[in-house]
Amino acid sequence: MSGVANCAAYTGGRRVADVEVKDIGEVLKQTDRFIWIGLHEPKEDLLRQVQQEFGLHDLAIEDAHRAHQRPKIEWYGESLFVVLRTAQMNREQGRIDFGETHIFVGARYVVSVRHGSSLSYAEVRSRCETTPQLLCKGPGFALYALMDFIVDQYFPIVDVLEDELEALEAEIFDEAFSRETTHRIYQLKRQLLEVKRAVSPLVDMCNRLMRFDLELIPEDTRPYFRDVYDHVIRINEMVDTLRELLTTALEANLSLIAVAQNEVMKKLAGWAGIIAVPTMIAGVYGMNFDFMPELKWDLGYPLVLGGMLVACGSLYVYFKRSGWF
Amino acid sequence: MSGVANCAAYTGGRRVADVEVKDIGEVLKQTDRFIWIGLHEPKEDLLRQVQQEFGLHDLAIEDAHRAHQRPKIEWYGESLFVVLRTAQMNREQGRIDFGETHIFVGARYVVSVRHGSSLSYAEVRSRCETTPQLLCKGPGFALYALMDFIVDQYFPIVDVLEDELEALEAEIFDEAFSRETTHRIYQLKRQLLEVKRAVSPLVDMCNRLMRFDLELIPEDTRPYFRDVYDHVIRINEMVDTLRELLTTALEANLSLIAVAQNEVMKKLAGWAGIIAVPTMIAGVYGMNFDFMPELKWDLGYPLVLGGMLVACGSLYVYFKRSGWF
Amino acid sequence: MSGVANCAAYTGGRRVADVEVKDIGEVLKQTDRFIWIGLHEPKEDLLRQVQQEFGLHDLAIEDAHRAHQRPKIEWYGESLFVVLRTAQMNREQGRIDFGETHIFVGARYVVSVRHGSSLSYAEVRSRCETTPQLLCKGPGFALYALMDFIVDQYFPIVDVLEDELEALEAEIFDEAFSRETTHRIYQLKRQLLEVKRAVSPLVDMCNRLMRFDLELIPEDTRPYFRDVYDHVIRINEMVDTLRELLTTALEANLSLIAVAQNEVMKKLAGWAGIIAVPTMIAGVYGMNFDFMPELKWDLGYPLVLGGMLVACGSLYVYFKRSGWF
Amino acid sequence: MSGVANCAAYTGGRRVADVEVKDIGEVLKQTDRFIWIGLHEPKEDLLRQVQQEFGLHDLAIEDAHRAHQRPKIEWYGESLFVVLRTAQMNREQGRIDFGETHIFVGARYVVSVRHGSSLSYAEVRSRCETTPQLLCKGPGFALYALMDFIVDQYFPIVDVLEDELEALEAEIFDEAFSRETTHRIYQLKRQLLEVKRAVSPLVDMCNRLMRFDLELIPEDTRPYFRDVYDHVIRINEMVDTLRELLTTALEANLSLIAVAQNEVMKKLAGWAGIIAVPTMIAGVYGMNFDFMPELKWDLGYPLVLGGMLVACGSLYVYFKRSGWF
Amino acid sequence: MSGVANCAAYTGGRRVADVEVKDIGEVLKQTDRFIWIGLHEPKEDLLRQVQQEFGLHDLAIEDAHRAHQRPKIEWYGESLFVVLRTAQMNREQGRIDFGETHIFVGARYVVSVRHGSSLSYAEVRSRCETTPQLLCKGPGFALYALMDFIVDQYFPIVDVLEDELEALEAEIFDEAFSRETTHRIYQLKRQLLEVKRAVSPLVDMCNRLMRFDLELIPEDTRPYFRDVYDHVIRINEMVDTLRELLTTALEANLSLIAVAQNEVMKKLAGWAGIIAVPTMIAGVYGMNFDFMPELKWDLGYPLVLGGMLVACGSLYVYFKRSGWF
Repeated sequence: MSGVANCAAYTGGRRVADVEVKDIGEVLKQTDRFIWIGLHEPKEDLLRQVQQEFGLHDLAIEDAHRAHQRPKIEWYGESLFVVLRTAQMNREQGRIDFGETHIFVGARYVVSVRHGSSLSYAEVRSRCETTPQLLCKGPGFALYALMDFIVDQYFPIVDVLEDELEALEAEIFDEAFSRETTHRIYQLKRQLLEVKRAVSPLVDMCNRLMRFDLELIPEDTRPYFRDVYDHVIRINEMVDTLRELLTTALEANLSLIAVAQNEVMKKLAGWAGIIAVPTMIAGVYGMNFDFMPELKWDLGYPLVLGGMLVACGSLYVYFKRSGWF
Repeated sequence: MSGVANCAAYTGGRRVADVEVKDIGEVLKQTDRFIWIGLHEPKEDLLRQVQQEFGLHDLAIEDAHRAHQRPKIEWYGESLFVVLRTAQMNREQGRIDFGETHIFVGARYVVSVRHGSSLSYAEVRSRCETTPQLLCKGPGFALYALMDFIVDQYFPIVDVLEDELEALEAEIFDEAFSRETTHRIYQLKRQLLEVKRAVSPLVDMCNRLMRFDLELIPEDTRPYFRDVYDHVIRINEMVDTLRELLTTALEANLSLIAVAQNEVMKKLAGWAGIIAVPTMIAGVYGMNFDFMPELKWDLGYPLVLGGMLVACGSLYVYFKRSGWF
Repeated sequence: MSGVANCAAYTGGRRVADVEVKDIGEVLKQTDRFIWIGLHEPKEDLLRQVQQEFGLHDLAIEDAHRAHQRPKIEWYGESLFVVLRTAQMNREQGRIDFGETHIFVGARYVVSVRHGSSLSYAEVRSRCETTPQLLCKGPGFALYALMDFIVDQYFPIVDVLEDELEALEAEIFDEAFSRETTHRIYQLKRQLLEVKRAVSPLVDMCNRLMRFDLELIPEDTRPYFRDVYDHVIRINEMVDTLRELLTTALEANLSLIAVAQNEVMKKLAGWAGIIAVPTMIAGVYGMNFDFMPELKWDLGYPLVLGGMLVACGSLYVYFKRSGWF
Repeated sequence: MSGVANCAAYTGGRRVADVEVKDIGEVLKQTDRFIWIGLHEPKEDLLRQVQQEFGLHDLAIEDAHRAHQRPKIEWYGESLFVVLRTAQMNREQGRIDFGETHIFVGARYVVSVRHGSSLSYAEVRSRCETTPQLLCKGPGFALYALMDFIVDQYFPIVDVLEDELEALEAEIFDEAFSRETTHRIYQLKRQLLEVKRAVSPLVDMCNRLMRFDLELIPEDTRPYFRDVYDHVIRINEMVDTLRELLTTALEANLSLIAVAQNEVMKKLAGWAGIIAVPTMIAGVYGMNFDFMPELKWDLGYPLVLGGMLVACGSLYVYFKRSGWF
Repeated sequence: MSGVANCAAYTGGRRVADVEVKDIGEVLKQTDRFIWIGLHEPKEDLLRQVQQEFGLHDLAIEDAHRAHQRPKIEWYGESLFVVLRTAQMNREQGRIDFGETHIFVGARYVVSVRHGSSLSYAEVRSRCETTPQLLCKGPGFALYALMDFIVDQYFPIVDVLEDELEALEAEIFDEAFSRETTHRIYQLKRQLLEVKRAVSPLVDMCNRLMRFDLELIPEDTRPYFRDVYDHVIRINEMVDTLRELLTTALEANLSLIAVAQNEVMKKLAGWAGIIAVPTMIAGVYGMNFDFMPELKWDLGYPLVLGGMLVACGSLYVYFKRSGWF
């Protein structure tokens, strides 16, 4: 059925059957089974069918249908509704593509709904299936596996942003600045804020999954959420460090532009002086006074030319020593 | 009656009768009914009449009469008093018009008092009337419907502000800066602060509506307030992101002005040099020494002119290569 | 007696007698009475006498004698000691004059001690006397009336500061900047910080008056303190908004100074070019070569003059089009 | 004994005997006595002796021996260990000298250990001895007296820093800026941070002394610590206000430097124009064309000179009116 | 065995035997012993062997194998897992080398796993062995000894960073600024953020070790963790102070660059004027008017030369007095 990526029943951590959406009710009659169903951008009627099979809350289904939720976790009676933002680096266009995944977890089901840019969760499922001793903990573990997978997608993204900052540092401190540098600093800031917005609500979410006394998350599954929590905290810290460095970089950039301006101005001033002095001297000897004895001397012209050269040379050396050139 | 936009009695989520203000006491004798009354900039005597019918607190009525409250929620005995700020984008004048709505909620009544710029709540009421299975939850649901409607008015406003930031980015990074750009950054900051002030108190308000054990807000209505809470958090986050980007944009703007200054100064310096050199050479050959052999040469003049051209050309090429032009 | 502004006994919210300080003990023997006494910059012996009559704590009296306390609230056994900062705009000198008021509240007395710049509290007292149904709630209500009066004095002050910011904005964005603008921004910041320091401790103080289970503040008086709380929060928010706008204004100011500098530099560069070109041409034809055919032409001079004009004109048009002039 | 500034036994708030360190054990056998001992930079063996007499904790003694602790309060079983930073303005060198005082408080002893720059505590002791009705509250009151004395040393220091800020403001806004101004702003910031670090931990410390149910601090001594708390909060607020003003001053300083730069540049541009115009005219009439009719006129020279003067004068008036000069 | 730095059994605080990893189970049969084992970058199979001997949790072992954890503390049932970041100043390359140490603490074992740059813990162990009265408190004390040692490594690093800031201050305020200064400010900021990230999670970790009622950390060991806590707080405060000073230094740097620019511009303007005036005068007397009486005077030339000198001299004195030179 279009929109259903995968739908299977598990017993004791092992996949026992592929299930059609319409057969879910039948399958759940066997009380030792739980169902893990993965949807990809489902049509509304499919969502409604899934809602009826598992008895999901209206508001959660509305959220799952609309995009642009912020990450959150909500309890509707005995079921849990989790919204996560997924992210992938779009290297060609130099931007981050975000998607959304909604997960419904009940005592005997996990439903994941994938929207927008994100990797398929087939990999998560098959990895879980190789460790039935863990998957047999139930839907809570599947939730962990999905969250862990999604959160770990952010590490390579933050790495790319760190590389970008280092490239910017090299530009700012080693080479000539340009309008482009400032623009890239700004773009990086924007991307960091986007990642921050996608990741920071997860701190609180993991905290709640770890602490609340939920039947859905058995005691021995909680350390795994603590692991996700640690990853989220690390991503958050990396982003915050990057933001603070970026702010400093922007200020350093401004300082260095001012330094460069100073250098240009000193050069301008120096060369203006070097050219102005012989111009002035030439002006003096261009005056038309009847009585200007130097003008009659045979050596007048070469002496003046020499004087000009000496003056310019001295100025040049002086400016060179003062660090102006 | 002037100032009363709508006043009706509901039973089991269905509108059963339009009611005059003076008949309210009579209608409330039927214990399965609740009354939903909408006022629009009421005169003081109307407010006093409503106060008497429902037994509202003096302080709340005073607040409802005065404008310029900040959003808040207050319990007066068994009734709830909610102040909200409404907002509408005034596109012609490029500013946000704010209004205020006060809502009184009791066990069997909802009173909304609308001041200043805001859409009519007729739409909210009719939408509620189409879902009697929800409206039958009572006045608490009507409160949710009003708050949801008011909060959702902020999304298009934030969208406009995001568009404005993007337009500013384009101006800052792609085109020439101007005094106007800085002014618009400042105006945008001011508008963001206004929206922030109107929305941020709602976080705490929704929290209290969700958590406190109130008879007015039945258990199964709370997820709806959680929904409003999510929207408020999202608007808040969007505004905060915009503010941080705007701060960065202002700094980037300053950097780029400095870069532009550098470019102007380099051009100034370069052309000054290109003009000063032939001027100096001309000065030298304008000197009046008796003995200046070059002046006698037939090719003196063209040679000097050629020399000037070569000097200027070399300088031009040099500056071009240095990236000064 | 000098230093005593007013001293009266109240029963059931009605003023029943004016009282001399020395008669207080006598009056309080009638258990249905409470005394409200207003002092204005009292001498130490008067303070000591009042202390003895009501049994006030040493530390509180020391505080009431010394000035320069920060706003605070303290319980000494069964009595309450409140310190508030009063403020008045001194329009002539363009600064805010601060004063201090100390209030002692017991089960059957209110003592207000007024220092420095502040309005008389006679108005508060007479307003209270017109609503005996409220004043009969006892000293707690008198405390509310005083605090409300003092807090409301800050609204016109914040309005003046908002007007000042708008005047500054007009200066920054519309007219020429000046040293004075920056100075006024700084002064405004200083005033905002002063107001902030005077008002922000009140948030916590009102909170404590509203929440703690005090006999002094009866249950039905608390909504009134919630009202003061709302006003304090609003003043705080207004001040914070002003501070953030001011920070942005200072940065915008710097940007605009840089823009102005750019404009000056472009004009400088442009006119320097327009003057340098004819100077260079004149220099060339001022050279003394024997063989310079143009010099012999009858039309040489007008042609050169014409060439100069054309060059200058072209440059002028070029710079005009580039937006440099 | 060297290192012991003072050591006395007190009964009922009155000094009853001077005590040698070695006799402490003997004296404490009388259960109505407590001992107050003041040490000044004691050698390790003296400290060890005191430790044994009172049974102090190893870690506390190590801390008391080492310098450079941050202010803190610690409970070791039934005794209290307090670390405070003392400060004195060193006016000659324009810097703040910091010292450290460690106080051990037990049910029947107070030990103060003074390191580095600080006033002697003899004054505190003698002031306490004049109010036996307070000192009889026991070691807790002695602790209050010491803390109050130490905290009050910060007021004159903050006053000096406020004066320094006002001097800086005058420099920034009224006179010419200089490198020195920026340096002094930086130094002031550094000093503020030092004071902040010394004072801010005291907020939490006083809070704990006021709130925890300690036998060492009897109920009726707590209002005194509340007094210290108020002072600490005030110093903190003053320092924070100064920091924020300083930040604004630094930014205003930068703005004013830019304004000054603009002014210089306008003057430069203006005078360059005023000189360039007659230079250009002179250049034109210095050309050697055969046919230049003006050169033959008798009034040519004075007319040109006059024209130059008019041009320069007009420019001067124009720049004057434009506010460039 | 490669990877095992040290492995010994302790009874009553005294080392009683060196133990092979494979004999651990045997040794632990004597219930009065605990084992302290130090690993250095162990291979996976060694880690797995240690895991089996002590029954450590899978997730902790995975963390201990992977690097790049952030400092944290975790309870897995009855054992404690601690991650710390170690740091050493690499003076040659002017950067801080970070490493990681993982510590497993159980009722009767301590396992430390050292990765990357860090000093050997042999010193900690031998120091502990010299104080058996403390080590006999058990594995909790060994944990304290390791944490104390690791935290104390940060003091010399922060000292180096403080020295670096002072060197930068000298550069900024006393000498000429350069691109290098700004770069070093940025580098210092980066290092401070790295130290901050390594140290700040320790505040919360020590808090939890001090407060939670753990059998692993006996009551009388907690003051020692309070000591570590104090050190961590001090390092944190030093880093925060450095960061704030650095921010101010960066802004002061920008101000001083602007001041320097002003100075250069004034010099440029001054000297341009001094050269332009005689050039203009010479231009005037270079004009070719037939009737220019001065040109005939015998003293014309010397007078004009003298006039030029006087003009230049006056300007020089004027600029000198105005502080432009």
